[in-house]
Amino acid sequence: MITAQAVVYSQHGEPKDVLKTQTYEIDDENLASNQIVVKTLGAPVNPSDINQIQGVYPSKPEKTTELGTSEPSAPCGNEGLFEVIKVGSGVSDFKVGDWAIPANVNFGTWRTHALASEEQFIQVPNPEQSKTRGKPNGLTINQGATISVNPLTAYLMLTHYVKLIPGKDWFIQNGGNSAVGKYAIQISKLLGFNSLSVIRDRPNLDELVSELKALGADQVITEEQNASKEFGATIKSWVKETGGEIKLALNCIGGKNSTGIARKLANNGLMLTYGGMSFQPVILPTSLHIFKNITSSGFWVTQLLKNNEDLKKSTLNQIVDWYEDGKLRDAKSIETKFEAGGEKQLHELYIEGVTNSSKGKQLITF
Amino acid sequence: MITAQAVVYSQHGEPKDVLKTQTYEIDDENLASNQIVVKTLGAPVNPSDINQIQGVYPSKPEKTTELGTSEPSAPCGNEGLFEVIKVGSGVSDFKVGDWAIPANVNFGTWRTHALASEEQFIQVPNPEQSKTRGKPNGLTINQGATISVNPLTAYLMLTHYVKLIPGKDWFIQNGGNSAVGKYAIQISKLLGFNSLSVIRDRPNLDELVSELKALGADQVITEEQNASKEFGATIKSWVKETGGEIKLALNCIGGKNSTGIARKLANNGLMLTYGGMSFQPVILPTSLHIFKNITSSGFWVTQLLKNNEDLKKSTLNQIVDWYEDGKLRDAKSIETKFEAGGEKQLHELYIEGVTNSSKGKQLITF
Repeated sequence: MITAQAVVYSQHGEPKDVLKTQTYEIDDENLASNQIVVKTLGAPVNPSDINQIQGVYPSKPEKTTELGTSEPSAPCGNEGLFEVIKVGSGVSDFKVGDWAIPANVNFGTWRTHALASEEQFIQVPNPEQSKTRGKPNGLTINQGATISVNPLTAYLMLTHYVKLIPGKDWFIQNGGNSAVGKYAIQISKLLGFNSLSVIRDRPNLDELVSELKALGADQVITEEQNASKEFGATIKSWVKETGGEIKLALNCIGGKNSTGIARKLANNGLMLTYGGMSFQPVILPTSLHIFKNITSSGFWVTQLLKNNEDLKKSTLNQIVDWYEDGKLRDAKSIETKFEAGGEKQLHELYIEGVTNSSKGKQLITF
Repeated sequence: MITAQAVVYSQHGEPKDVLKTQTYEIDDENLASNQIVVKTLGAPVNPSDINQIQGVYPSKPEKTTELGTSEPSAPCGNEGLFEVIKVGSGVSDFKVGDWAIPANVNFGTWRTHALASEEQFIQVPNPEQSKTRGKPNGLTINQGATISVNPLTAYLMLTHYVKLIPGKDWFIQNGGNSAVGKYAIQISKLLGFNSLSVIRDRPNLDELVSELKALGADQVITEEQNASKEFGATIKSWVKETGGEIKLALNCIGGKNSTGIARKLANNGLMLTYGGMSFQPVILPTSLHIFKNITSSGFWVTQLLKNNEDLKKSTLNQIVDWYEDGKLRDAKSIETKFEAGGEKQLHELYIEGVTNSSKGKQLITF
């Protein structure tokens, strides 16, 4: 018997009001043949996790009494890294010691352990396995626990919609300093695409520009430069030099910021919206639609990968390879270790994580 | 020798300031083998014609001295119906008496006659030919002269992008009372699609609703109804009744009006923008993009058909068939006949046409 804990909610609301820790038993001596038992290595707090608890996110886990709650409850958390600690007699894809991530969202990753069928997980290499294959690096817990959303979002937006010609074509993005923005900069460099990242002006602008250029950014400009007609000529000259076009825009801000990057697209270009940090809608001048044939679409990694396991696996493999080869840097998280029987209960740690999310991505390790 | 007249401009500006009538000779006794001479039956004033003269339209004719102007000039007008009055020895697609429309935009249709190669025109049946084929109706001059833009726009938006299931699926449009809107209502009925048209509230609302329903409109609602949450339930019940979805939105207005119809789309729906009558941009809430996977694109018949003569011909044939069979009603124009040697010069008539465009579509007949 394993005594496990999970963070759950039975009513939607602010996390501090509705989260609680549920303790439950996992009978690891009597597994069905396809079952595995995993222990959690790390599970982060994502904005979508918070919105799910608040009840304002369109994808959410079912509420059940499976974990022994008196009311139907749902476990929190969508991303996480796990280690397999026991396998059923018929399990073929996993052995004890393997690392694994949930195959789908809504698994409920804010917990110490889980009992699941093997289909509910996808294997990723543990550091020993990477070493055996001669790789210079193994995945870190942060890399494994945050691989499913941001790196996949960046990779898929850059590759799944528009065919950018390596060495020639460009993409433009706002929120160049966001986690996805930084992955997009690095991944575009690895794939040979040119990146044009728009960021907010700030006192330490040069420092941030240097940081992004160190990640592989080709050009980094401010929102004011992007809005300036005069500066437009400079952008055109950059694009002309590579003999390509700006075929793709990635928008996570909205409002005039979305208009600004859409205006830089070549004819027939695509803008993908994956966030709305300004809480303003996407705004597109009619003429961009009609006369430049610009298309504006949305990107939601959850929906895209829902029925496409092959795409999820091949994308994951690519990201894992880059991590193992030291070619991709992960966005750092602020890590807090959970101690069973320690001062704070698990849900208290996650409530703090939600509160501290404004300071940077929070990862609870176990 | 034929003495011809054409309305031309050498500088962009307001039509009343820059248009003039150019008189020139067509040597119809010495045609090259692939040439034809046509006389104009009718040529309307379209908004895009005016924008072209003003220099604010992205597609425009080249300025030349071909018509004998002292400065390089461009002929005005993009739509028109012509009758073939002479053919070169090698012409195979036309004979004298045939009706024809320009194969492409920028031909310069505001003129009395034209000398052209046969490839520059597409044949449409004259009334005698329709009669011979046993059709109940022949094309009217208005139908032929206005066939290239509005009916083709409506037909192609309804058929070229989203597969609507006849009897089940819906499209929603704003500007339901516009010329394109009325064609869309009729064509959707002919194709078996359900239409939901949004119009401005007005004193004679019932009258307009009746008019649109007589054209085949399934549902006609006001902008206020479309924006109302309570009324949303009524719309949902209409759609539920047919067992389909609202898969397509047609936007010619922009601003909150574009948001309003986009909100009614089912998941994965498409909004096509073909006009911006409010001079407001297209506004799309981020959540519609991300969580409902709504796509927003532009439609410009000129660009779509530029390199797709087969699509233009097959679409034209369908519209012509419906006109001949009396199944499609044309949007009426206000017709003014040009008399050579009359009181007003040709460019004066077109300047009046531009001025009067606010009262309804103007067609000059010859």
